[in-house]
Amino acid sequence: MTSSLLFGPLFEAPEIAEIFSDQGHLQGMLDFETALARAEHRVGIVPETALAPIAAAAEAGKFDLAALGAGAASAGNTAIPMVKALTALVAATDPEAARWVHWGATSQDAMDTGLVLQLQAALPLLEADLRRLAQALATLAETHIATPMVGRTWLQHAVPITFGLKAANWLASVLDARDRLAEAGRRALQLQFGGAAGTLASLGAQGLAVAEALAEELSLALPDSPWHSRRERLVDLGAALALLTGTLGKLARDLSLLMQTDVGEAFEPAGAGKGGSSTMPHKRNPVGAAVALSAASRMPGLVASLFAAQAQEHERGLGGWHAEWETLPLMLRLASGSLHHMTEAMSGLEVDPTRMAENLGRTNGLILAEAASMALGATLGREAAHRLVERASKRAVAEEMTLHAVLAADPDVSAALDAESLARALRPDHYLGMAEAFTRRVLARHQASTPD
Amino acid sequence: MTSSLLFGPLFEAPEIAEIFSDQGHLQGMLDFETALARAEHRVGIVPETALAPIAAAAEAGKFDLAALGAGAASAGNTAIPMVKALTALVAATDPEAARWVHWGATSQDAMDTGLVLQLQAALPLLEADLRRLAQALATLAETHIATPMVGRTWLQHAVPITFGLKAANWLASVLDARDRLAEAGRRALQLQFGGAAGTLASLGAQGLAVAEALAEELSLALPDSPWHSRRERLVDLGAALALLTGTLGKLARDLSLLMQTDVGEAFEPAGAGKGGSSTMPHKRNPVGAAVALSAASRMPGLVASLFAAQAQEHERGLGGWHAEWETLPLMLRLASGSLHHMTEAMSGLEVDPTRMAENLGRTNGLILAEAASMALGATLGREAAHRLVERASKRAVAEEMTLHAVLAADPDVSAALDAESLARALRPDHYLGMAEAFTRRVLARHQASTPD
Amino acid sequence: MTSSLLFGPLFEAPEIAEIFSDQGHLQGMLDFETALARAEHRVGIVPETALAPIAAAAEAGKFDLAALGAGAASAGNTAIPMVKALTALVAATDPEAARWVHWGATSQDAMDTGLVLQLQAALPLLEADLRRLAQALATLAETHIATPMVGRTWLQHAVPITFGLKAANWLASVLDARDRLAEAGRRALQLQFGGAAGTLASLGAQGLAVAEALAEELSLALPDSPWHSRRERLVDLGAALALLTGTLGKLARDLSLLMQTDVGEAFEPAGAGKGGSSTMPHKRNPVGAAVALSAASRMPGLVASLFAAQAQEHERGLGGWHAEWETLPLMLRLASGSLHHMTEAMSGLEVDPTRMAENLGRTNGLILAEAASMALGATLGREAAHRLVERASKRAVAEEMTLHAVLAADPDVSAALDAESLARALRPDHYLGMAEAFTRRVLARHQASTPD
Amino acid sequence: MTSSLLFGPLFEAPEIAEIFSDQGHLQGMLDFETALARAEHRVGIVPETALAPIAAAAEAGKFDLAALGAGAASAGNTAIPMVKALTALVAATDPEAARWVHWGATSQDAMDTGLVLQLQAALPLLEADLRRLAQALATLAETHIATPMVGRTWLQHAVPITFGLKAANWLASVLDARDRLAEAGRRALQLQFGGAAGTLASLGAQGLAVAEALAEELSLALPDSPWHSRRERLVDLGAALALLTGTLGKLARDLSLLMQTDVGEAFEPAGAGKGGSSTMPHKRNPVGAAVALSAASRMPGLVASLFAAQAQEHERGLGGWHAEWETLPLMLRLASGSLHHMTEAMSGLEVDPTRMAENLGRTNGLILAEAASMALGATLGREAAHRLVERASKRAVAEEMTLHAVLAADPDVSAALDAESLARALRPDHYLGMAEAFTRRVLARHQASTPD
Repeated sequence: MTSSLLFGPLFEAPEIAEIFSDQGHLQGMLDFETALARAEHRVGIVPETALAPIAAAAEAGKFDLAALGAGAASAGNTAIPMVKALTALVAATDPEAARWVHWGATSQDAMDTGLVLQLQAALPLLEADLRRLAQALATLAETHIATPMVGRTWLQHAVPITFGLKAANWLASVLDARDRLAEAGRRALQLQFGGAAGTLASLGAQGLAVAEALAEELSLALPDSPWHSRRERLVDLGAALALLTGTLGKLARDLSLLMQTDVGEAFEPAGAGKGGSSTMPHKRNPVGAAVALSAASRMPGLVASLFAAQAQEHERGLGGWHAEWETLPLMLRLASGSLHHMTEAMSGLEVDPTRMAENLGRTNGLILAEAASMALGATLGREAAHRLVERASKRAVAEEMTLHAVLAADPDVSAALDAESLARALRPDHYLGMAEAFTRRVLARHQASTPD
Repeated sequence: MTSSLLFGPLFEAPEIAEIFSDQGHLQGMLDFETALARAEHRVGIVPETALAPIAAAAEAGKFDLAALGAGAASAGNTAIPMVKALTALVAATDPEAARWVHWGATSQDAMDTGLVLQLQAALPLLEADLRRLAQALATLAETHIATPMVGRTWLQHAVPITFGLKAANWLASVLDARDRLAEAGRRALQLQFGGAAGTLASLGAQGLAVAEALAEELSLALPDSPWHSRRERLVDLGAALALLTGTLGKLARDLSLLMQTDVGEAFEPAGAGKGGSSTMPHKRNPVGAAVALSAASRMPGLVASLFAAQAQEHERGLGGWHAEWETLPLMLRLASGSLHHMTEAMSGLEVDPTRMAENLGRTNGLILAEAASMALGATLGREAAHRLVERASKRAVAEEMTLHAVLAADPDVSAALDAESLARALRPDHYLGMAEAFTRRVLARHQASTPD
Repeated sequence: MTSSLLFGPLFEAPEIAEIFSDQGHLQGMLDFETALARAEHRVGIVPETALAPIAAAAEAGKFDLAALGAGAASAGNTAIPMVKALTALVAATDPEAARWVHWGATSQDAMDTGLVLQLQAALPLLEADLRRLAQALATLAETHIATPMVGRTWLQHAVPITFGLKAANWLASVLDARDRLAEAGRRALQLQFGGAAGTLASLGAQGLAVAEALAEELSLALPDSPWHSRRERLVDLGAALALLTGTLGKLARDLSLLMQTDVGEAFEPAGAGKGGSSTMPHKRNPVGAAVALSAASRMPGLVASLFAAQAQEHERGLGGWHAEWETLPLMLRLASGSLHHMTEAMSGLEVDPTRMAENLGRTNGLILAEAASMALGATLGREAAHRLVERASKRAVAEEMTLHAVLAADPDVSAALDAESLARALRPDHYLGMAEAFTRRVLARHQASTPD
Repeated sequence: MTSSLLFGPLFEAPEIAEIFSDQGHLQGMLDFETALARAEHRVGIVPETALAPIAAAAEAGKFDLAALGAGAASAGNTAIPMVKALTALVAATDPEAARWVHWGATSQDAMDTGLVLQLQAALPLLEADLRRLAQALATLAETHIATPMVGRTWLQHAVPITFGLKAANWLASVLDARDRLAEAGRRALQLQFGGAAGTLASLGAQGLAVAEALAEELSLALPDSPWHSRRERLVDLGAALALLTGTLGKLARDLSLLMQTDVGEAFEPAGAGKGGSSTMPHKRNPVGAAVALSAASRMPGLVASLFAAQAQEHERGLGGWHAEWETLPLMLRLASGSLHHMTEAMSGLEVDPTRMAENLGRTNGLILAEAASMALGATLGREAAHRLVERASKRAVAEEMTLHAVLAADPDVSAALDAESLARALRPDHYLGMAEAFTRRVLARHQASTPD
């Protein structure tokens, strides 16, 4: 399928959508065909005179997409009608040149290499967005390295953290996903060229020489052997895309939770009409987070389809290969859209440190119960301190007092800790542990991974 | 996404693809809006004069899809820009009427009901194809009720069956899947109408009355309450589509195995150029089976996305709902394509009973080892007979004799079974058990489920 | 796999886990074998004297599970070593009876029917829990039919609803999922009995008669033909379990969001140590919601495995069938655990209407912006009213005033609405629309579905 | 869940199953606790006297698993009851030492690091099996580098290949999957240690120092920051396992197809009773292939669960994390079983070159249609040659002649190619193209990747 005019702009980055359009698919195959002619000329098979006519014909804009689609419906793939139409186009100007179109190749060679060429164009665009996103997160981490906020576990207030650490953790995940995508992408950019059953027998003794020249023409790696029914590297690329989208889903989940009216600590940037409601003028819907979460929701199933399609029969399978055709492009499009939205959201994120501070106070100081436990535990032992603070916490809840007030009034506490130490132990910004150190470690990794 | 010009004709039935095009999505929502105005007029909210201008404007062809897509990218859904554009269109001819567009509804009401209206149009088309497929299978079962062939388990020759029974089993599965789809479809055809958070508060005391009138206008069921974040019935419909596609995948798997050059017992009908290879003129690729298997390979992941999206937050969620928008339509399109190909394949199936008979003989009669075991077991007991036949089978393999010859020469066998009984026991068409009875039972169910 | 001693009690209901233990699997197959002997006796094949010895031996406790496992590792399924061991056990007391063990059946007959017998035992237990859960939700819906709370869409405050309506919507989903499970369960409870390749040829002319007697013995439906490689009904049951678990995941998602420290409107019942944290004594972790959400997270992938396994080869497949063996039981166990936790949570739910009321006031009345829009819209038209309220909302936010105060001070408002009407329009309990009506409709459905 | 006594031996490698048993899970956490005490002693927190009592108590065999399970059911994870029980065990001998158990850690630290320690033990075992499998495939590729067989595409005979090339392609896939697993494994072996919300605040200024010492104690990498809700590396490991299992599924699919009675070109090694049928003594079921295919069928859904669980809330999530607990161990167990079976199958593979040669002849030479096309194409041009051969192929089929005979009798052919050249062009072993070259390239990669 191709991008929807209605949903595409919401769900996909436009440049990526264009690469994976019908035109883009066709052009990928056509680029394979012209490079094949050039490579076969270098090896001495195709005459020089054939090159220009083939190159001139091999432009997607010259083809009737609907006619190719009808041809694909009966041939079972898009390469067969493409080769026929290309041959006819070439023959119209140079019948002799037309003899050499697609020489020695099989339809899967054109389709697989065409896909790889689309990936070759698309991956740098994703990488560029990933760089922007990482930079935006690094800036948030630096800026808020000392901004205390509620740390939440199981959706409950736990202990204080900083917003800088939260951003640094997002960044660490993005760096991991970026590394994975780069590796998987590098490995996937390999030529497919094997002929009918992967022996290149159609080229006699010249098969390998043509393959080498062709890989060079297209700036692709030459695999040890054709991979018509060995799909590891494409599936692995799909997994890297799913991992990235999952990571972005984590960012979006956190963002949507922070944007809750009940929390209100950070917001996607407002735009004209962005996320507005038709009947509730005060609402500010997390549109970017919704897109990223929907992509994260769709990707696991899509990547499962790729894994499920791995067991392709013999030298070239049926069904499994066909299942990839629309799935992997869709995954690139969805990943690009999620990435686009999260990059925009994090680049313009509106952070509300005041609300963060207010929310830290919402439990009457109970969020520092562990701090009190640890401070008392040094003297009383972990379990005794834990029991004491548990009792105090219950009293604080029951009598609507602050934990500080309850503890200060408790003689067991006074015996173990003087008033000043107790007060210090109960300040959020004094119970941040390694938050800054962890943040700096992640920032250093980001710095190291970013060329000047 | 929408249908690819290149892949759509191969993977999807054209009528279904059209219903789930961008135009189809938009028209579904517009049909909701016009029906809403009519319903609100019946209840006394919207003046009669507003109806014609709204109806006149509510034609998908009058809208700029790209502009709506741009609007959706910032609003977060397609209904918000649709309502704006519709209001503007109406206002151009009748500003007073424009006041009443979308009165009291929320964007999800338009999108969900619009989808349900698309389903209302699509499901009967699937049902019609299912009827044709079932009829084709019933005909095969009848025709070949006495055609012996190899029964294969674990891809090994096991015991004889009939091709009629194989077709009957395919039919039984198709009938099951058809029943499930009919039930799920019936339940899914329900109105969505709840306003901002499912209370219809925007309509004061008239909410339920409008809802009743609206359901009537659209020939949809009225649910007990709005289902903005309760997606059971849509997910269940998705599951029924996946089940159908899985069933068709089973048919396609069998067909692709029967079409193997090494087996050659049944073939998809040949068409001009259908399944031809560009370099191997003798090949006959199972194109229909490939499409059905690819759909069966993609569906489990797609339906998993629907199940995964069920946990939608509170009154209307984010991410989960968005994940459905493109997924369910894609499932309908893929199911329709698979169904189309299998209907065509089974309607024109070329069966080769001669080859079936030849293949029955390929193991030198070992395929009747169980028959021999059972015949001897009546006298010798199961285990003794089993051991005796196992020994004979090994000898038949080692000495390249038929099982019949080995057994006939074995005095233990002669003691238990006379020569004529042995010969009879080793005829494939004498070891078919209930094949005919089971076939007739399935045919009777088909008969009963088919109105005249 | 079987239940973990460590994780099982958290993730699974114990009775269901027991049914799907190794012992339960073995006993299911053994029950098939004894019933088969009885059925074959009724038809005149097996002598009466063989029945008691077979029945006496067919107790799971008498078998060495590890030895059977070793046998399965080489035979490729558990029925083959079970039949051998059962035959040996019978032979030890009655060699003549041992001849008749498993007469005419194939290993898949024993395994499939054994599984169906486990389902026959398990489904009523799920149904009973579903009834309790539905009752708990109905009670919540009744009790809180007039308890106003914030309606949340996109995780933003939208308009008021009642907690009764929220509970009613949960109930409506549970009723849908219960209906689906009941239907799918009913259809799945069918005998498997086909012999080597589904013809029952091993029983000569008596196959169907034995099958009928056997179905009767086991209180199972007799299918039109064996279903060795037609898995629709089992897969459909899996889908119904996934749907139920998805529904419970929706309940759990809402519950976990309501339990947020930042929201605090409803809580799972507290138990001794339930959900406690080892270091944060004040925390109250949503343990039940976590279990239900984890099941909802695991199920889509598990049901996808079942759908993916549908395309089983010919008369009995390889790989696909094997993929079901551990998957479907695991799904029943996970569904049971999720159901158990949600039943417990909803039966003892602690609701805090005071906090609900407080949260309604958190936006300074902006949650009633739509109410104001609708009230003004009747006079001013939808778009004008919308713009006016949008402007007022912005001012309310900017100047930290209530929406009421801003609107009351706006002459455009006063011109359209008198002060009393404005005040009334801005009360949450006056903007609940059909909340009560919808709640009552769902309760009526529950009532109708519940026998006295 | 843990291994089934009945199914485990079939589906899982026993050493891996043991590592991921209940005992193994518990011991992983206990090893974390003892290492934590040692690390905190090195930093000066825990007194030396506490080390021995903690180490002595931290043996899984000393714990009551069922009691821990009951504790987990109410606490919501297994670490909380483990810490309680461990503290009690230590206290029984040394109450002072008991104070220091789990000091400063959170339950997720113990569970995550425990899991990583299980992975640390398991991955080398998988790597060793992968090495054996690769060696077996390399041997097959070498041995059969010149064994011609049918190349099959779309399950149709296409052109000749060698069995050596087929084995080399299997090998290339296995090497890819092995590389991916090694990388993902290396990255996943990292310490988890962050305390309640990932700041290690409980350890004051010593958090990082303890973390460094702890990573060293356990030979694990120290991450830049804790990864409680950043699951990329575990999910990525899951993806690498799914990729491996998919690759093994491809091997198994091919093997099961080659083992078909109708093909009979290669077989899993026979063992005593291995793959035997209870009623068909001649059958030889592909048990190993069935296991590998069932794992390949289950894994896509399982890995989808991991991807779906990535969006974990804030500092520590609920539901998503819980969904990993049983899923990742199950994936390791299934991957190990599939690997075990394919290693055994490929190490003892029975190859039948005679049958391969026979099958090459089954199409009366049509398998060399492309060879004829290419030979004629050099003179006549691709399309003319293609048409000529297509016509000849049809005649060969219609008149049951060999392609050779038809072509030899065709004057257009004689004009383009002399009789000897025609005969040579139609020998399978003369139309193998780069089969040997590709095989050698893959073998060279294997050689290079294998230390002496």
